[in-house]
Amino acid sequence: MSRFLSAERRALTPYTPGEQPRGAKLIKLNTNEAPFPPPQSVVDAAANAAQRLNLYSDPEGTALRAALAAYHGVSPENISLGNGSDETLAFAFAAFGGAESAFAFPDVTYGFYPVFASLYNIPYTEIQTDLSLKIRTEDYIELGKNIVLANPNAPTGETLPIDDLARVAESNPENVVIIDEAYADFWGETAIPLTAKYENLLVTRTYSKSRFLAGARLGYAVGPAELIHDLETVRYCFNPYNLNSMTLAAGAAALGEDAYYKARWSEITAARDYTQNALRGLGFETTDSKANFVFARHADVSGAELLAGLRKRGFLARALGRERARDRLRITVGAAEQMRAFIGAVEDILRARKELS
Amino acid sequence: MSRFLSAERRALTPYTPGEQPRGAKLIKLNTNEAPFPPPQSVVDAAANAAQRLNLYSDPEGTALRAALAAYHGVSPENISLGNGSDETLAFAFAAFGGAESAFAFPDVTYGFYPVFASLYNIPYTEIQTDLSLKIRTEDYIELGKNIVLANPNAPTGETLPIDDLARVAESNPENVVIIDEAYADFWGETAIPLTAKYENLLVTRTYSKSRFLAGARLGYAVGPAELIHDLETVRYCFNPYNLNSMTLAAGAAALGEDAYYKARWSEITAARDYTQNALRGLGFETTDSKANFVFARHADVSGAELLAGLRKRGFLARALGRERARDRLRITVGAAEQMRAFIGAVEDILRARKELS
Repeated sequence: MSRFLSAERRALTPYTPGEQPRGAKLIKLNTNEAPFPPPQSVVDAAANAAQRLNLYSDPEGTALRAALAAYHGVSPENISLGNGSDETLAFAFAAFGGAESAFAFPDVTYGFYPVFASLYNIPYTEIQTDLSLKIRTEDYIELGKNIVLANPNAPTGETLPIDDLARVAESNPENVVIIDEAYADFWGETAIPLTAKYENLLVTRTYSKSRFLAGARLGYAVGPAELIHDLETVRYCFNPYNLNSMTLAAGAAALGEDAYYKARWSEITAARDYTQNALRGLGFETTDSKANFVFARHADVSGAELLAGLRKRGFLARALGRERARDRLRITVGAAEQMRAFIGAVEDILRARKELS
Repeated sequence: MSRFLSAERRALTPYTPGEQPRGAKLIKLNTNEAPFPPPQSVVDAAANAAQRLNLYSDPEGTALRAALAAYHGVSPENISLGNGSDETLAFAFAAFGGAESAFAFPDVTYGFYPVFASLYNIPYTEIQTDLSLKIRTEDYIELGKNIVLANPNAPTGETLPIDDLARVAESNPENVVIIDEAYADFWGETAIPLTAKYENLLVTRTYSKSRFLAGARLGYAVGPAELIHDLETVRYCFNPYNLNSMTLAAGAAALGEDAYYKARWSEITAARDYTQNALRGLGFETTDSKANFVFARHADVSGAELLAGLRKRGFLARALGRERARDRLRITVGAAEQMRAFIGAVEDILRARKELS
């Protein structure tokens, strides 16, 4: 750090994104990307928009917000667009957090939440999940802080019933409750309908996972008009043109391709269940993931050893353990044949280990 | 605003971007976009990247930073990429501003600087330009605050000699000096070589204006490795994947097309000089703009009246006057034939006005 970095930023510890190898021929099961390309109509919409890049993109994202509103059964004033849901979450922390407006979230969850809080010098509490890393809804009832819950949670993939989220929102009427639904499409349930009822409830979504558009950078929030207005205030104070024209076009086109996506989601969830079962059969403990990844720990083999063995066999996975989740790997669910090969690699690692001992 | 907006954000006044009309057939001379498309190779690079959007973009922007470093004769560690230079500037305010780290900038300049300062609760001083709206270098010598100077300045297009910027950096060794070179390509001079000499000097650049890629959203900072590292710390605490794959590819391709760009810059500056001279002949006072816009005020006709008259005739321009710049219009320089038509429209407005009186 330079001596010019302001006092407010000197304690920052940045988020570490997953490795994006360049050139190497690895099967990437480390950043929850889809193994399928987006539909051709989505690629075409982006390529078509590339012809007019000398003009600014629409800072209001009018067409995409209208399409998303129709898709979710809300109004455009209930939608705020982000350069990935990371940006939308950053805006939400900036809008609703402050020295007197603390945040709370689980200790085992998306690792970016404490980073956002630190960026804006917001006090935060990490609430312990239970022994099997599940969120206990009761811990969030009448908490009196702003709350972020990922549902399904990351990196466990575990879910809370939507009714529980309603109770959390209802019992914290003076605070904002944010439900991060990055992986909700793989599960099939959503808290979006609740945003019509609770003025303090915000849902965030991303195109990175279930829309196969991680490289386009697109996320959004759905919520009551007044909360959305606050997000837009921050957005217009930071970067009003936060979405490029190509991504805006791709995002709208993707909403017309539900048949394509739903078929692929079925393939992914089938491969997830296969992987989860196969790992259990090989002596792994796994969470009950409803997302496009599994979270698993072997009884005898450390996470570091597994990661090294997988890499040697051409697979990238990710160790996302702070203390309590140590030795667990988060493994993105790829295509069916990739997951069969992955299980084969795990079997090979365990076999080689046995021969050595 | 909702009652949930935190105390820190309640006083925010967002930036107002220029109008982006949808559908209407207006000649847009209001947001300093180029009248030319980007080169075909740039469009193709973006379209090609659209095929692999299921994978995340490279958060380090390795290829583009290498290309920019080669282009500017620096190292990749001297480059930080932004989702437009607005984002890069927002990161710089976050990194170097704070309660004890004030900022200063001219009173007539890019209207986003005070907004960034407010977003992060950074105290700031607006330093009066002289009677002809020129920045006085002496006002910034030994100032003892972080400084932002746009060069050419917006919305005047006036420039400061590069040697003056060196004196500002040298005389404020405990503070960061940021030179916003959004329009520098139209002028042809740059402070980038100074960043090798002054550890407190940062230059920001954008692809929106002179690279004809406003809709792609791409900007960057060039500076000493330690200052760049601080920007990267903030970027990794906010949104590590802040650039999409298509824009990264377009940005690198554009650097190989200097012949195309230089020919178009000549057309634009010739049209600017024509417009400036023609307006003077029609009773306008103008600044000496070196950018792709002119800034002009008529002796007798208010800015509002001119804007309304222009709009009726199919032209959008922009009134960017706070108190001291009242009644001035900033007019983007379009293609030569557009500017001839624009001058015709101004003549028509003045004629119609004369007939009425």
